[in-house]
Amino acid sequence: MSSGELFITEFLGTMILLLGGAGVVANVILPKSKGFNGGWLLINFGWGLAVFAGVFVAFKSGAHINPAVTFGIWASGASEFGPGIPVTALNGFIYVSAQIAGAAIGATLAFLAYKKHFDEEAPPATKLAVFSTGPEIRSYGWNFVTEVIGTFVLVFVVLNFGNWPGDIGPLAVALLVVGIGASLGGPTGYAINPARDLGPRIAHALLPIKGKGSSDWAYSWVPVAGPVTGGILAGLLAPAVAFG
Amino acid sequence: MSSGELFITEFLGTMILLLGGAGVVANVILPKSKGFNGGWLLINFGWGLAVFAGVFVAFKSGAHINPAVTFGIWASGASEFGPGIPVTALNGFIYVSAQIAGAAIGATLAFLAYKKHFDEEAPPATKLAVFSTGPEIRSYGWNFVTEVIGTFVLVFVVLNFGNWPGDIGPLAVALLVVGIGASLGGPTGYAINPARDLGPRIAHALLPIKGKGSSDWAYSWVPVAGPVTGGILAGLLAPAVAFG
Amino acid sequence: MSSGELFITEFLGTMILLLGGAGVVANVILPKSKGFNGGWLLINFGWGLAVFAGVFVAFKSGAHINPAVTFGIWASGASEFGPGIPVTALNGFIYVSAQIAGAAIGATLAFLAYKKHFDEEAPPATKLAVFSTGPEIRSYGWNFVTEVIGTFVLVFVVLNFGNWPGDIGPLAVALLVVGIGASLGGPTGYAINPARDLGPRIAHALLPIKGKGSSDWAYSWVPVAGPVTGGILAGLLAPAVAFG
Amino acid sequence: MSSGELFITEFLGTMILLLGGAGVVANVILPKSKGFNGGWLLINFGWGLAVFAGVFVAFKSGAHINPAVTFGIWASGASEFGPGIPVTALNGFIYVSAQIAGAAIGATLAFLAYKKHFDEEAPPATKLAVFSTGPEIRSYGWNFVTEVIGTFVLVFVVLNFGNWPGDIGPLAVALLVVGIGASLGGPTGYAINPARDLGPRIAHALLPIKGKGSSDWAYSWVPVAGPVTGGILAGLLAPAVAFG
Repeated sequence: MSSGELFITEFLGTMILLLGGAGVVANVILPKSKGFNGGWLLINFGWGLAVFAGVFVAFKSGAHINPAVTFGIWASGASEFGPGIPVTALNGFIYVSAQIAGAAIGATLAFLAYKKHFDEEAPPATKLAVFSTGPEIRSYGWNFVTEVIGTFVLVFVVLNFGNWPGDIGPLAVALLVVGIGASLGGPTGYAINPARDLGPRIAHALLPIKGKGSSDWAYSWVPVAGPVTGGILAGLLAPAVAFG
Repeated sequence: MSSGELFITEFLGTMILLLGGAGVVANVILPKSKGFNGGWLLINFGWGLAVFAGVFVAFKSGAHINPAVTFGIWASGASEFGPGIPVTALNGFIYVSAQIAGAAIGATLAFLAYKKHFDEEAPPATKLAVFSTGPEIRSYGWNFVTEVIGTFVLVFVVLNFGNWPGDIGPLAVALLVVGIGASLGGPTGYAINPARDLGPRIAHALLPIKGKGSSDWAYSWVPVAGPVTGGILAGLLAPAVAFG
Repeated sequence: MSSGELFITEFLGTMILLLGGAGVVANVILPKSKGFNGGWLLINFGWGLAVFAGVFVAFKSGAHINPAVTFGIWASGASEFGPGIPVTALNGFIYVSAQIAGAAIGATLAFLAYKKHFDEEAPPATKLAVFSTGPEIRSYGWNFVTEVIGTFVLVFVVLNFGNWPGDIGPLAVALLVVGIGASLGGPTGYAINPARDLGPRIAHALLPIKGKGSSDWAYSWVPVAGPVTGGILAGLLAPAVAFG
Repeated sequence: MSSGELFITEFLGTMILLLGGAGVVANVILPKSKGFNGGWLLINFGWGLAVFAGVFVAFKSGAHINPAVTFGIWASGASEFGPGIPVTALNGFIYVSAQIAGAAIGATLAFLAYKKHFDEEAPPATKLAVFSTGPEIRSYGWNFVTEVIGTFVLVFVVLNFGNWPGDIGPLAVALLVVGIGASLGGPTGYAINPARDLGPRIAHALLPIKGKGSSDWAYSWVPVAGPVTGGILAGLLAPAVAFG
């Protein structure tokens, strides 16, 4: 596929991912929503199934929809990012920029779907939380560790999907993300994807959201650097333990 | 399949869809039901698995069981609605009328299954909510936007199922609907299907329900026009981004 | 397979079904259990995945593990109950008796797994509810209707599984049962299986359960007659609408 | 695969299992976590999907990641533990030791991911519960019975997976474990895996956990002996009822 097609494919896949992901958070935390206080498992399934939908849309580019996957594949020494797409710096740049842009637009669409609920009174931090992650206990170092571990599991298992000789499809990634959210999302809200956090944070900064507060740029490096680090570690380790 | 067989197939599939879908809402909101207050994720799984069951029943007609899918396929320029069923105005009319009739009967069966719970005291709006959707914050314009976005995701992803070379079956549609409900159902209760809302609203108007109130016809155009618009947008966009 | 092998296969499959099904109810309603008050969706997944496990175990006999399925296949005019097992009165009797016996033993094993929790103080009706179903609003006629409708959906969709050309396996039945429980389980607790209710009720009557009350034999005909009726209706209707 | 490769494969699979499994418990029970009080079904899905991830990672060694499976395969009289791995005492020892070591390291990684939440005030028993199981009602005999029954279901159904002619993969084991947790986890917290309990208990004893209490070694034999017994019983029974 051409560079433009690659951009559009990853853009649309990540847009669908954030539309579902930001949407489920809005549903659970914004006032008067039907899913208000719906619980952590609802959030986990919302995000996991947003991955499910996004992977179908972006399947032809390999459905990274996450820079940590792109970096992980690069670190693993693979020759292709996706079918017929060589690992080059330019292609890596296209993947990541499309993911960030798609994530920003997806979160904006979720904002529009929940517009009347954003117009209700709610703490500024709640409105930010629909867009981007934040830790329950702020500690940049440990928050970074949590994001490294969660993303390591994501990319390491994805790179091990090939062990299973059956069809591996969108469902496997979706369930893996449900599981990581359930297990490792408690401290930081599991960005595990730099585009998922950075793109919507930019959207939050730009959009005219009623009662909007800070976009918390002080924290913003954690859900970027942590997932990139975790993805690279997984990419380095996976080939070394791919036996027989 | 003949026109009559097409009608019966879509009728039965949508009947099963509404029996499950109206059923889970009744379970969660009607007094004394075992699933009372069971939460939003329960509603999402109930609707998603109702789609699962309905798709098996209507598989031979392509299992639209939703006019938004029928309109979306038409807008995409495809030549067939289902295997051996050409895209014609007459066939489109058969699909949609069968879906609306099946939805009305399915909701009626759910009413019978929960008859003793409908006989209990409950606000009229609660009893209507088993049949048809209503917004948490009434704003026809923004409610319309929400339904457009939700249905766009449904039909756009369904039209992208072909990207994945494996078997796409009833499970994929079911999980997609679980996800859309979790993520985008908060403001309006996710009709994302005109037949799902209109058929049961007609049934609500006609059935002898104890303590019945208004069928809220003022809102009824939103869950029809929104999903049709979203389905058509998805149908128009999907082929334009179906790369190599 | 021989008659003895058929009996043991259906016996073990239904035993596993009830071990899981009675188990999840015990987990949610008995005092001091870790899943206490865990919600309706937990019960739905517990039962659905108990079906999942039971179907693997009984796969070689066709995995009825439910007399309503046996009666439905008979009513559909099929020639075989399972691979190489002709539809005869004797075979039907073996299926059903194995299912009832297996259900009784499975519920007994669940009783043993939760023995210390049965020894706690709890209303007698709670302890019965681990074994057998009971309605929230007692009305034999309407409770019967609810069980007919729920079982109709189960058997009708199972008989339509063949519409989908892909592999249909234990997961499809499991998810169908999760959905029926979510949607149609609210009034009566969804027996939708005569053996699932009758076998454990016999076990309840016989076992030395601390603080045991009535086995509620007055209600016991509903979860037998309703499911048998629903299964037969589904068996009669399914072939009539199996188009080309 | 070589002995070293076998060790590393089972080590990594069980490490991923415990990272997810201990993680979800931390999320639900440690103070200030986003999943705090998220419910039993969240725990069940967290553990089930941790199995899902672990099975992909360890697929090439047969993905036991549980000594009860290793013992069950041995008791069944099979000739191989996994593809090309003969049943020998040495191989059995490698499996089990790799599982215990991997479980200890996985739980340690979960501890690091939740480090700031472990630093909060919480009862020592809560902090232990992230690592290892404990009964709600202490009764070594009945707790042992519960673990035998739960593990019997796990290994017996796994050994019956071959009845189904379709692909059996990581999803089937994952869902089976979700179901066993939902149904049979209420009394003891379902170790159903000696390594899952013993390895993390050793880690708990060694790690510098703030406000740490006893590692409860008095109970530690139950989640080892019960699962081994249940796995052996399943291994003995499965071949005897594997008909035609």
